[in-house]
Formats: sequence, structure tokens, C-alpha cells
Amino acid sequence: MNTVVLALAAAELALAPSIVPPTPVPTAGQEEAATPLSPGEIVAAAPESEWVRIAPEDLLVMTLAPDADGDPREVVIQLMPAPYGEGWVGNIRTLARERWYDGIAVTRVQDNYVVQWGDPNAEDESAAKPLPAGLRTMKEADYVVPFGQTRPRQRVVIMSDPYSDMAFYEAGWPLATRDGNAWPVHCYGMVGVGRGYSPDTGSGAELYTVIGHAPRHLDRNIAVVGRVVEGIEHLSSLPRGTGPLGFYEDPAQNVPIISIRVASDLPESERPRFEYLSTEGATFERYVQARTNRRDPFFITPARGIDVCNAPVPVRRVADGG
Amino acid sequence: MNTVVLALAAAELALAPSIVPPTPVPTAGQEEAATPLSPGEIVAAAPESEWVRIAPEDLLVMTLAPDADGDPREVVIQLMPAPYGEGWVGNIRTLARERWYDGIAVTRVQDNYVVQWGDPNAEDESAAKPLPAGLRTMKEADYVVPFGQTRPRQRVVIMSDPYSDMAFYEAGWPLATRDGNAWPVHCYGMVGVGRGYSPDTGSGAELYTVIGHAPRHLDRNIAVVGRVVEGIEHLSSLPRGTGPLGFYEDPAQNVPIISIRVASDLPESERPRFEYLSTEGATFERYVQARTNRRDPFFITPARGIDVCNAPVPVRRVADGG
Repeated sequence: MNTVVLALAAAELALAPSIVPPTPVPTAGQEEAATPLSPGEIVAAAPESEWVRIAPEDLLVMTLAPDADGDPREVVIQLMPAPYGEGWVGNIRTLARERWYDGIAVTRVQDNYVVQWGDPNAEDESAAKPLPAGLRTMKEADYVVPFGQTRPRQRVVIMSDPYSDMAFYEAGWPLATRDGNAWPVHCYGMVGVGRGYSPDTGSGAELYTVIGHAPRHLDRNIAVVGRVVEGIEHLSSLPRGTGPLGFYEDPAQNVPIISIRVASDLPESERPRFEYLSTEGATFERYVQARTNRRDPFFITPARGIDVCNAPVPVRRVADGG
Repeated sequence: MNTVVLALAAAELALAPSIVPPTPVPTAGQEEAATPLSPGEIVAAAPESEWVRIAPEDLLVMTLAPDADGDPREVVIQLMPAPYGEGWVGNIRTLARERWYDGIAVTRVQDNYVVQWGDPNAEDESAAKPLPAGLRTMKEADYVVPFGQTRPRQRVVIMSDPYSDMAFYEAGWPLATRDGNAWPVHCYGMVGVGRGYSPDTGSGAELYTVIGHAPRHLDRNIAVVGRVVEGIEHLSSLPRGTGPLGFYEDPAQNVPIISIRVASDLPESERPRFEYLSTEGATFERYVQARTNRRDPFFITPARGIDVCNAPVPVRRVADGG
């Protein structure tokens, strides 16, 4: 906990409308070097040593049915590292390895909230897909982890989180802490475990991702187990469901999921490779500071503030063997 | 500024997954009345007197080209009341009345950020659509309003806003204040005025709406002039652009806008009618408190916190003459 950062903002790039997009011309006396870098430029300049390879056991490749034009739709999800969501993540790997997910579907798309996928027949006992043996049942206490269990080396913390005493980043993930506990937060693109009314009813067979403003009220109430690192547009641009809670009313609207595989189970040549920017490195700290107070061209009033979901951890795909 | 509320969360309804969705059965000794209401239930029980009709001069009806199935796509936008965004809102009404918007298009869809519409030829001086005479040029100072100009009757304020000294609600809108100024905040669905690098370059001819986590770094840097009150799914579910900043690379991907009309210019029978829940009433206060600490079934750990974009002001369509 070296540095306190009160930081800034939403997507990778500033809103630069089409009407006047030329590169700003420095006026006399201004050096080019004096132009503050954008958050994206700061990340692009990160040394290779600050990028951390994501283990293939922590990547899921979800293949949806092709779209109306026949184009493939692939979504890559990074699973959370222990101790967060540990039991559910184990279940998810089991479900993927048993090929239980193959043939399920996206059944719910609620605007500004979540896209959810699972067994479309889950509610019908006679038709529901039986779950494989050996799944763990997770309990209410598993939604948080004692703060002491987390590595005490957070470099970037955000003291002004309305939902906790402090938000912070650790090993590439946004987290929050209060009452001696820590938990992963529901930001855009995070993946969680659907459950029923009782907190021990979510196995990992039904998952969702956030496609709107961070629903932080779900923190500590539902397990966050991962995040989409590529292809979220295949989920976020799906037609919204018109039933209650955004469920598709006609099963024909469901979007079939062909398969979900753990990347380490794929042949070496088919494994996607991803890296995240170390949240313990100097670049990430500069990135969050730049998002807190944007001074790159276009911005006239720095925000002097940030929320943890507005400074997403940069993740990139790398070429084979890269 | 009667009440300080530190509140809670994202969409209208809790995530109630399909796997276990029955209504909870009260156990012996529990009265039905003891079940805390959800935010949606609180709003549904609001007295009619707390719903405020939106003036037809403050509603825009944007008609997109029909979708691939030939279904109509209509988006209704509420313009901000004075003094916020006053000059731009005037320009927008002028542009609509001159029918300048008819035939423009959605040209940009950037995931977790914005959908933007305007003249697809704006960058090509020889082909750009000339703007009507009489538009006002707005300046940097116009992005904020002196806090004293706002009505001092905020009932619900949120003290823990990372981007300001205080967020609050006034006349149905989420706002924030710092340094003696107040400004409308960039939440999901808010509509703003695209501009170039200079703060005085946005006329209202190019507009955008937020389709992701609140990009609060844009507050005080771009003018918020309204919000989508119906049909945002026609924008948020559009295919993401694959060019820089999410612009469509092929003009054939642009989504044509047939027309944008001020509702008061439509024949009485065609005017949509909308109401918002008074942010100065008792129901809105209860709603924000319930979102701050959800105690309705499903929730196990109340958040004890809220951010202003996670407690959107309820808006509803009402029947003709309703």
C-alpha cells in the first residue's frame, strides 16, 4: 500500500468526435514533449517486463453459434486466481472439462445490467441437464476473503470508493475491502455466478457478465469469478430480452453456446495468449493517475477523482509464442 | 439539502437467475409485511402526485431506419431543463425544427462507452451538411452552472462521490458540485454534445449517448444535454464499430436516422407522454435508500453505499391523456 491514488474514467480512448479530429498543433513555445500522454499512450509505452502472461488454465474460450452473417463469435474469459472465487472456479473448470456447457445458451440480455448463459431447461426438472458429480457447494462466507489473505503489495489504491473502505488492485484485479474482508468488484465485463435466493445455490453452471454501469450492489452477494478479456461485443450487442429481467421470451431467441473450453485443454496451436498490465508496476500507477486527471488534448477540466471500475486493468492478446 | 443518503446499485431489478426463481416462502413467525420492498416495488407504490409530467418541448423523438426484420426503431430523449446545457438545448430544438437531423446517421458505436450520431460527411467540407443560421456558440464556462443558480431544495444527496464534493438530484436529474459550480453527470443513457478539441466547437449537430460504465471524466468537459428515456436498446445493441474510437469503417454500416422531432411539434395524437419520479418526494428518497442497502429477498449483504449513476431516476411512459 505504497501509493494513494484518487483517479479517473471509462473506455480506453477519449471521446474525439468526428467533426474536428485533427491532431492539435502545438503553439509557439510549446514543446511536443510537453503534451501530456493519454492513458492509452501510457499503457502502449509500458516496458515488456510489466506485462504478465495469463496462465492457460485461467482462460476459457466460449464459442457462440455464428451470427446471422455466418461470422464466428468467440468470447475469451479470464478466471480469477485463488483465493477469490476458488471453489466456483474449480467447478467451472470441471463443467468445461466434462463438456457440460456444450449446447447451453445465452438466455437473458438485460440492458445496462447483465448477459446470462446457462441451461435453458434449468427450471424444468424433467428436462434439466444433470450436473456432473463432484461440484463443490459454496457458502455465503465464500463471497469474501479475509483481507489478510491477500498479498499486501497493492501499489494503487482508491480511497474514495462509495461501496467499501478502499478499493485496490492486486495481481491484475480490481478489489475492495471493508470489515476485514476483501472481495472482487462488479465492473463492466466481470463474470459472475448466477444463483437462486439462497447464497449456496450457485454452482458455476449459470454465469453472467456485466454489460452496463457497475452493479456494485451485487458485490459480496454474488461470486465474481472472472472477466471477459476479448469478444464482449458478441454479448453486449445481443438483442435485449423482452421478458421479465431481460430473459428471452421465445426460446428461438436464445443464442446457442457451442462449447466452453479451458485454454490449457486446447491444442497448443489453438490456445489464445493474453497478458495483463501488472497492477504492481510503475506504468499502471501512471495510467490510473492519468485517468484521474486527464490532461491529454481534448480535456479541459481534470476530474480529480476516479472510481475503480473507471480504470480497468489493461489486457492484451499476444501472438503465438509472444 | 435535508437528507444525506449514502445509497446503492445498477438496473431496476435484482439478478434473479433462472435456476431458482420461486417467490420466497416466509417461514413461521415472519409476517409478509416484514419482507423489505425492492427499489422497483417502492417506485411502483409511489403516489400519483409524485410523478411529474415531462413537457413535450423537452422530448425528442428520434426515428432510426427499421431494423433487419423491418421492425421500427424509435428512441425518445428528454432534454435538460434550464439552466443546464441551455444554449445547446436551444440549438438542438432549432436543428430538429429545421429538419437538419433528417438523414444523418449513427456513425460510431464504441463498446462500454458511447453511441454517436451526426452528419457522416461532417469531416469533408465539400460534402458536409451546412448548419442552419442562428445556432449559438457555447464556451468552456457553459459546461458548468454556478451552484447558487440551482434550486436549493435537494432532498437526496450523495456525499461519497469520487468525482465531486457531493452528488445530488434536482428536478429529476443527477448532478454534482465542486468549487461553487454544479453540472450534470455522465451516467448510462445520458446524452451529450460531441465536440472537437476546442471546447467551443460543439453545436448540438453531433450527439452521443453513454452505453457503458459512467464516463465521469467527461463531466465538465462535454455538455450533457439530456437522457434517453425509451428505446436505448436500439442504440446499445448496435454492432460495435471496428474503426478507431468505434467508428464504423464502412459507411454502409451507418444506421440512418430518418428524423428527429421535438414532441411538441408532433400532432397531439402522436406525442409520447412521459413522467419522472420527483426527486424531491418521499418515494425517491426511499428508493435511493433501498438501493443503498438492499434488503429485499436475494440480497445477503447490503452495500452500505451508492454512486449517483447507480440510482437512476425512474421515468415512465404514460398513456394518452394519462
